[in-house]
Amino acid sequence: MTRTLELHPDRLLPADPSTRAIARELYQSIASLPIISPHGHTDPRWFAANEAFGNATDLLLAPDHYVFRMLYSQGVGLQDLGIGKSDADPREAWRLFAERYHLFRGTPSRIWLDWVFAEAFDIDVILDARTSDLYFDTITAKLATDAFRPRALFERFNIEVIATTEGPLDRLEHHQAIRDSGWSGRVITAYRPDPVVDPQFEGFHDNLAKLSELTDEDCHSWTGYLAAHRKRRAFFAKMGATSTDHGHPTAQTADLSADEAQALFARVTRKDCSPADAELFRAQMLTEMAAMSVEDGLVMQLHPGAYRNHNRALFEGFGRDKGADIPSRTEYVSALKPLLDRFGNRSDFTLIVFTLDESVYSRELAPLAGHYPCLRLGPAWWFHDSPEGMRRFRKATTETAGFYNTVGFNDDTRAFLSIPARHDLARRMDCGFLAELVAEHRMNDWEAAELAQDLAYNLAKKAYKL
Amino acid sequence: MTRTLELHPDRLLPADPSTRAIARELYQSIASLPIISPHGHTDPRWFAANEAFGNATDLLLAPDHYVFRMLYSQGVGLQDLGIGKSDADPREAWRLFAERYHLFRGTPSRIWLDWVFAEAFDIDVILDARTSDLYFDTITAKLATDAFRPRALFERFNIEVIATTEGPLDRLEHHQAIRDSGWSGRVITAYRPDPVVDPQFEGFHDNLAKLSELTDEDCHSWTGYLAAHRKRRAFFAKMGATSTDHGHPTAQTADLSADEAQALFARVTRKDCSPADAELFRAQMLTEMAAMSVEDGLVMQLHPGAYRNHNRALFEGFGRDKGADIPSRTEYVSALKPLLDRFGNRSDFTLIVFTLDESVYSRELAPLAGHYPCLRLGPAWWFHDSPEGMRRFRKATTETAGFYNTVGFNDDTRAFLSIPARHDLARRMDCGFLAELVAEHRMNDWEAAELAQDLAYNLAKKAYKL
Amino acid sequence: MTRTLELHPDRLLPADPSTRAIARELYQSIASLPIISPHGHTDPRWFAANEAFGNATDLLLAPDHYVFRMLYSQGVGLQDLGIGKSDADPREAWRLFAERYHLFRGTPSRIWLDWVFAEAFDIDVILDARTSDLYFDTITAKLATDAFRPRALFERFNIEVIATTEGPLDRLEHHQAIRDSGWSGRVITAYRPDPVVDPQFEGFHDNLAKLSELTDEDCHSWTGYLAAHRKRRAFFAKMGATSTDHGHPTAQTADLSADEAQALFARVTRKDCSPADAELFRAQMLTEMAAMSVEDGLVMQLHPGAYRNHNRALFEGFGRDKGADIPSRTEYVSALKPLLDRFGNRSDFTLIVFTLDESVYSRELAPLAGHYPCLRLGPAWWFHDSPEGMRRFRKATTETAGFYNTVGFNDDTRAFLSIPARHDLARRMDCGFLAELVAEHRMNDWEAAELAQDLAYNLAKKAYKL
Repeated sequence: MTRTLELHPDRLLPADPSTRAIARELYQSIASLPIISPHGHTDPRWFAANEAFGNATDLLLAPDHYVFRMLYSQGVGLQDLGIGKSDADPREAWRLFAERYHLFRGTPSRIWLDWVFAEAFDIDVILDARTSDLYFDTITAKLATDAFRPRALFERFNIEVIATTEGPLDRLEHHQAIRDSGWSGRVITAYRPDPVVDPQFEGFHDNLAKLSELTDEDCHSWTGYLAAHRKRRAFFAKMGATSTDHGHPTAQTADLSADEAQALFARVTRKDCSPADAELFRAQMLTEMAAMSVEDGLVMQLHPGAYRNHNRALFEGFGRDKGADIPSRTEYVSALKPLLDRFGNRSDFTLIVFTLDESVYSRELAPLAGHYPCLRLGPAWWFHDSPEGMRRFRKATTETAGFYNTVGFNDDTRAFLSIPARHDLARRMDCGFLAELVAEHRMNDWEAAELAQDLAYNLAKKAYKL
Repeated sequence: MTRTLELHPDRLLPADPSTRAIARELYQSIASLPIISPHGHTDPRWFAANEAFGNATDLLLAPDHYVFRMLYSQGVGLQDLGIGKSDADPREAWRLFAERYHLFRGTPSRIWLDWVFAEAFDIDVILDARTSDLYFDTITAKLATDAFRPRALFERFNIEVIATTEGPLDRLEHHQAIRDSGWSGRVITAYRPDPVVDPQFEGFHDNLAKLSELTDEDCHSWTGYLAAHRKRRAFFAKMGATSTDHGHPTAQTADLSADEAQALFARVTRKDCSPADAELFRAQMLTEMAAMSVEDGLVMQLHPGAYRNHNRALFEGFGRDKGADIPSRTEYVSALKPLLDRFGNRSDFTLIVFTLDESVYSRELAPLAGHYPCLRLGPAWWFHDSPEGMRRFRKATTETAGFYNTVGFNDDTRAFLSIPARHDLARRMDCGFLAELVAEHRMNDWEAAELAQDLAYNLAKKAYKL
Repeated sequence: MTRTLELHPDRLLPADPSTRAIARELYQSIASLPIISPHGHTDPRWFAANEAFGNATDLLLAPDHYVFRMLYSQGVGLQDLGIGKSDADPREAWRLFAERYHLFRGTPSRIWLDWVFAEAFDIDVILDARTSDLYFDTITAKLATDAFRPRALFERFNIEVIATTEGPLDRLEHHQAIRDSGWSGRVITAYRPDPVVDPQFEGFHDNLAKLSELTDEDCHSWTGYLAAHRKRRAFFAKMGATSTDHGHPTAQTADLSADEAQALFARVTRKDCSPADAELFRAQMLTEMAAMSVEDGLVMQLHPGAYRNHNRALFEGFGRDKGADIPSRTEYVSALKPLLDRFGNRSDFTLIVFTLDESVYSRELAPLAGHYPCLRLGPAWWFHDSPEGMRRFRKATTETAGFYNTVGFNDDTRAFLSIPARHDLARRMDCGFLAELVAEHRMNDWEAAELAQDLAYNLAKKAYKL
């Protein structure tokens, strides 16, 4: 028997009838607002070249680490999914996924994917072993049509602005090409300097050499290195960037004297940099980046706490970003203090902080953001970009930091087709949360209506200066 | 358009109709019980002098760090709110607050303040830019009337007993004056020795000198220092105190030999005390205070885990208690062991433990309190004194520690007018929690009714020996 | 007035009527499935000898540390409950419990006990001071009947298979006797080598000597010691074991070279083993045990994070397992890496991980289990084996690890009579959780129905190879 795929109009709203009625009304008032996507990982080449996406597996399965990590956890080899140097048949790879679609029950991936299947591709049966070929063929055929080219989807998805993420060594040709094309879609970049900031990043020394070449600065001297950052930041800002992003192992910051910083830089640019020096340099660079943000106005984002490439054999065989990044305990109160001591009291500087460690929501981040003028809380991130993750975020942060020290939703994804589903999920969850406050007479209905707009649209636009 | 301010009779009760009906009945049965306020920070001078409070800003805004920290986080300067050496116009300060009242949506401050406005001052419109002057004038005028003097409010609020908090150097003149006045209100003190116990407290060395003078003991000798504590504790007990309170950075305790303690005391009373010695001395003093509690019967409270004065510039400009105390990770299992090894198995000693780190509720505190006879759990504290904070506290602790190892509600506030609102909020949340247990057939209705009384009144009275 | 004891048919199901209706239907579809109890601490002697249990106190009170720890926390002496070298009258001990039964309100013990009283013993009044004797007499009398002998209860409880836990030095005579008896009940063992693996275990050195004797291997040589483990594991497997269990203070693993391991073993078998060496040896042995599991197919369980025997005086007076084991902060991401680097990518090896530190559910364990093929998550454990504990477990793990990286329910108990109550509670909570997903249109009803079967029966059977 084939099972029907249907998206219920009340999905994700609270079950209690009176609360649901409030949530539904709130949701309907904001459901069609344009999408602001201030932080994500789509490929600017898509929008520059506007070529058709490939087949179902290439687009939806092989690049989505949420999806293949779950399949991998249940014994499916990555090479069988077409990942790495693999000549797996995409139809057969898709079948491995289809047969195991039940593994995703209760996960946000399931919700996002069902939206993509039902809304983007108009499929009305559930994915399983029996419908695997139907899915593969339907999706692959539609992807070949003009309506499924990147720009058409961008417009259909009602995206007002989307930010991609590039490193300092990126020449931003695709962003330039988008601008040159005359297309009206607003695709901007963001400055992510990890490859030239983290001494433990693969190729760090080569990256410094390339940065020197690109900027005509001597990036093996401290002052030249800082000047190079300034130049690249200015270039990124010219290409639309309004923010920087920093993906560090910890939230540690430092505020060394100029002499100490220079000496540290000399040590980390040698081949035998110690782990402690690497950590201290990353820490110091967060404060340097904050100092530059005070100058150039770029909003600063900090995404700490992932133990990258935890699975040694997988990293050696397949490289980065294969679903083996694992959160770990992350401290903010002492870690951020050096940076906050310098810039924390400024209202003209914005630092948006994220976490993978939910125990800090109520203990550290909400109290910090509810005090320091520069601080804002990023939304529930990565593994917490989910219904329960969002509920926990709002319940743990709102009472101390309020709503207005948060910045709306980030989709943070390279899965382009899921972007509307992710924003829709976030909007539904926020409306549900607001509805509960109204139903328990902890908030007036008109306040919830204002907040629904703010959380879905205004806060992101304002925090990211979009 | 002016918005109506109304307190819904079912506010804060669960939304599900059958659960709400149970909660409402429970709440009605305990709503009018007298207030037991065993831990707080009201000023005994108010009740001694019984003078009128000043204007709206002086009473409700400038002293409430919950309120001004949120305004500060959104760029309002403290001096503009009349804080510190400021000649800000109170009416204009109030306007800064009124214009930003939406920042408090979803926070407990909003709930407490709306109660104060509606119930204490009988105002029926929402605070915002348009109603700012109306508020300022109404509140300020009422505060000048006899009905709003401290003792009148105390009686109107149906307070059975309230504890203030004083340091060992306080001569308790106000408490004496209250007793001498013949007024029937029960205002007692509590012994908070941090200024003479924490070597890192501002003025620690001067404080020891003052303590010597006050007690006629040599507080630069270990035995004299301990004797001075005993004398002050006895004096505080005479002035009604039934408890001590200890606000340490960590929960660390120690149990040194007399010789080791003496040597440590010699080190910390020198000017160059190391941080490690300061921590060890605080740790040792908790055990010494416990030993004295075994002798004199004072209930001991431990409030650890705040990183005090986190914002350097603000501390330098405005001093302590300006909303910049930030919780940090706090460990109890190893930290409390030395003290528990000595006194943990006594039923004639009570140690009430609080936390700002909710991750310890289920992992550490509930298992400890569900075993050691001396231990009780303080209620959800500070940033967690909120609807969701209380829900998390009950959900995380009850299954392991039960209800009877908790001690009812503490308002812990200097915001006198909000005290009934805070107790009312706690009562509503507890009744809601009990109602959920009844609705899910996890508890009988008559048990919930007994517990509602216990949580609102009996447990605090018993735990604090009131 | 005597209060009625009734078990409501909808107990523990969500209060919202539509959600409850879904939950009720799910529950009814799985309520009568046989019990799979893959991890517990019942005494195999019971099933071998099939003798009558003693009186109410001996069976239900004195051995249940959940129960007596709560009584102890409120000042009841253990000796008065018949624990330790005590000649307390069991009827009077029972009365101490009965008089304080209100302490258990809101705890899972209360739910389990009420089930035992109502369902197992057919009692229809609440336990309290007035009904204490009625309870004691009724229970004690019934226990003397054939219907209450261990095998009769096993059959009445519809237990398909139960695992006990034994150490390597156990000769498993009772298991042999059960097999020899011809009784059809399936009682199997599990291999718990802590007494010969943990250098800090009481009697470690003697245990090695005994292990040498038992296995005819030289357990003071590294190779002989490993060979002894292999022999005992093989014997346990022959006696039905499908799993091993490891109760370590931390989750630390190590992967030393053979030479390093041998040198470490030489150090820990001396009398003056350092705590660091003890920790490293336990860590190394987890990896050795994993290596043996790869060979012999035994499923590996890791239960870390308890600070054992925290109460010094109680340990000295009464010994282990007296309710004084306290959870503590537990790290997994770095700790498990050495083991996972060797065996993490194998699908033919299963490591089931438990925790007492709920902050790791979403931060560490779900991300790890949602990636590594060998990893599965054990259910909410010990203090978290409770309605709210289970809810938190599902809410925090499902979105990242899904349901299929979990392993169903473990009762983990020595309280034999409570086993059906514990499984029933887990089934109800899981059905409630699934019903919420269905009610919020996050899952289809037919998927929830499949999952209800999987969570109640199939997953445990599969994960533990039963």
